[in-house]
Amino acid sequence: HRGAAEEEEEEGISLEDPWQDEEYFGSYGTLRLHLEMLSDHSRTETYRQVILKNSASLRNKVVMDLGCGTGIISLFCAQLAKPSTVYAVEASSMADYTRQLVKQNACEEVITVLQGRAEEIELPEQVDVLVSEWMGNCLLFEFMVESVLLARDRWLREGGVMWPSSASFTLVPCQADGYYSEKMAFWERPYGLDFTPLQSLAQQEFFAKPKFSHLMEPSDCLTAPQDVLSMDMYTLQVRDLEEMKSHFTFCVEKSGVFHGFTAWFTVHFESLEAGGAPVELNTGPNSEPTHWKQTLFMLDRPVRVSAGDSISGSIVLQRNPIWRRHMTVTLHWNIKSIMEDTENHQVGSKSFPMWR
Amino acid sequence: HRGAAEEEEEEGISLEDPWQDEEYFGSYGTLRLHLEMLSDHSRTETYRQVILKNSASLRNKVVMDLGCGTGIISLFCAQLAKPSTVYAVEASSMADYTRQLVKQNACEEVITVLQGRAEEIELPEQVDVLVSEWMGNCLLFEFMVESVLLARDRWLREGGVMWPSSASFTLVPCQADGYYSEKMAFWERPYGLDFTPLQSLAQQEFFAKPKFSHLMEPSDCLTAPQDVLSMDMYTLQVRDLEEMKSHFTFCVEKSGVFHGFTAWFTVHFESLEAGGAPVELNTGPNSEPTHWKQTLFMLDRPVRVSAGDSISGSIVLQRNPIWRRHMTVTLHWNIKSIMEDTENHQVGSKSFPMWR
Ligand SMILES: [Ca+2]
Ligand SMILES: [Ca+2]
Repeated sequence: HRGAAEEEEEEGISLEDPWQDEEYFGSYGTLRLHLEMLSDHSRTETYRQVILKNSASLRNKVVMDLGCGTGIISLFCAQLAKPSTVYAVEASSMADYTRQLVKQNACEEVITVLQGRAEEIELPEQVDVLVSEWMGNCLLFEFMVESVLLARDRWLREGGVMWPSSASFTLVPCQADGYYSEKMAFWERPYGLDFTPLQSLAQQEFFAKPKFSHLMEPSDCLTAPQDVLSMDMYTLQVRDLEEMKSHFTFCVEKSGVFHGFTAWFTVHFESLEAGGAPVELNTGPNSEPTHWKQTLFMLDRPVRVSAGDSISGSIVLQRNPIWRRHMTVTLHWNIKSIMEDTENHQVGSKSFPMWR
Repeated sequence: HRGAAEEEEEEGISLEDPWQDEEYFGSYGTLRLHLEMLSDHSRTETYRQVILKNSASLRNKVVMDLGCGTGIISLFCAQLAKPSTVYAVEASSMADYTRQLVKQNACEEVITVLQGRAEEIELPEQVDVLVSEWMGNCLLFEFMVESVLLARDRWLREGGVMWPSSASFTLVPCQADGYYSEKMAFWERPYGLDFTPLQSLAQQEFFAKPKFSHLMEPSDCLTAPQDVLSMDMYTLQVRDLEEMKSHFTFCVEKSGVFHGFTAWFTVHFESLEAGGAPVELNTGPNSEPTHWKQTLFMLDRPVRVSAGDSISGSIVLQRNPIWRRHMTVTLHWNIKSIMEDTENHQVGSKSFPMWR
């Protein structure tokens, strides 16, 4: 949730916690992020629909809501279904307010609020359902998913259900004309002056890191989007998170300017009923916008492409070995022109720290 | 330029510079703020118009451009007029780029870039015109104006011209229904739940400090706006900045909900020609929006008012005696109802730190 511009300079690490937990949980002790998440109608209503559609099957079940924040998902469970118990787990100081909200909504018979880290809390029993909203920018950023996997291995009973049940990571080569103009073309002739000496500084300041909070138009996609990574929340292991890699080949569908790649994610909630339809939360450009928006990876220089060209390459999400909530996304690309014009055969690669 | 949400906790002051110069000038060493200012068409074009309309009178004049940033105002002088010299003074590391931009635009004969603080630089001569864009949020925030006054006293020749020449600070009681709903009314019944226990936290987190970056609709004004403070840039003294105070009486023109006060500023640039029209930069809701937008001071509780009611009171801008770039704005108000209904005679006051 931090913008690149607010990023501090990297300092000596010896005195700092590589998980930056004080900062991480501190930010969830204030209302700003919770309001942003609760106001995200698509996100919150999806979780509500998951509970509502599975309310019959949730009867007498034991649920854990991990990283519950204000407790909204736990309250949906108690309000819309009849679980025997919901353990609402929250590490930040918001937990005090979560308790008040549980009381205010007369749910204290069902919901038990536990303040503590997922790795440290103790429950009196195993759970049937582990529900959590752990997704960050680019799906993995902040790596809350690790806490979910550790809680799964400790507390989910054999045959229990994970919500979300799976996740996919989608990529598309795209135009980003508005952003490029605003940050780079601007310097060409502002107010009749030549400001191009600032362009290398602009490239470093605005394009070296990914742009969170990008809302792309579907028409900015140069090719069909592809799911390049997928995660099964039952079998995924913490060690799998260290490096996630995929190859791709995109076929350009319309001529345009290739400014970069845009990424987003989708998560799926399987039904508790045999044959029941899963619920999906899609954060892509064809769905209702969410607070995650999309993530834009800008190339250093835009490349003109034509319908029929191919863009092949790879993406690697490399978790930072020291700063455990951070990762670097590395993209390689190889543009093959349909024109057989070797001039336009371009190869490139770029690594984007998020944020360290 | 810092949002309340990014504000750090107040720490022990002994080790810190009360001017926070490293942070202040550091932020102007990156492009983000410069791009925001340059992209502000109303702001930048006003300075351009001031130079253009006075180009004949600027011939052979000596100009100082204080806190020149990328040097845009100096470049306007060299491009649109024929001054003998422009001293472009910049304390941040941006000065290296300013030199490159001066060269790129072939202005190095006219413009001399000096890297240093206004208080410390040495010029070989006094100047005829001191131009600067020193205005911050709520006009005074960051108190760059102090550097301008010190530079005036050291370097402006007898009879020289200050641009801006004067400034005024405008206030209006207003509605802010959208902002109130988003931050406070939201908790009343989100998704069918009662989240009111979070309202006191929300009040503290969202309404204790002023909201920068508020863009008000003219129709949100409950009364005619009033200029409550004005500053003459020729006679203003640094000591005057410690406390600026004014009384006001507003007459409510239409019934509505009094959510708070909105403030903005206007600066005036006198003409160098006898009888020439001044140029004005107005950052209020009836002018083209600027990057300063307006500043909103929310009451803790909204008050319903009726046409004919009066809102009298006072405003004090109190500079922080320790953190020299910060100030506290204190508002007192007394609402007298036209209905003679003593129930609706409300008195209140609130102090808003910006930010310390
Ligand atoms: Ca999240
Ligand atoms: Ca300014």
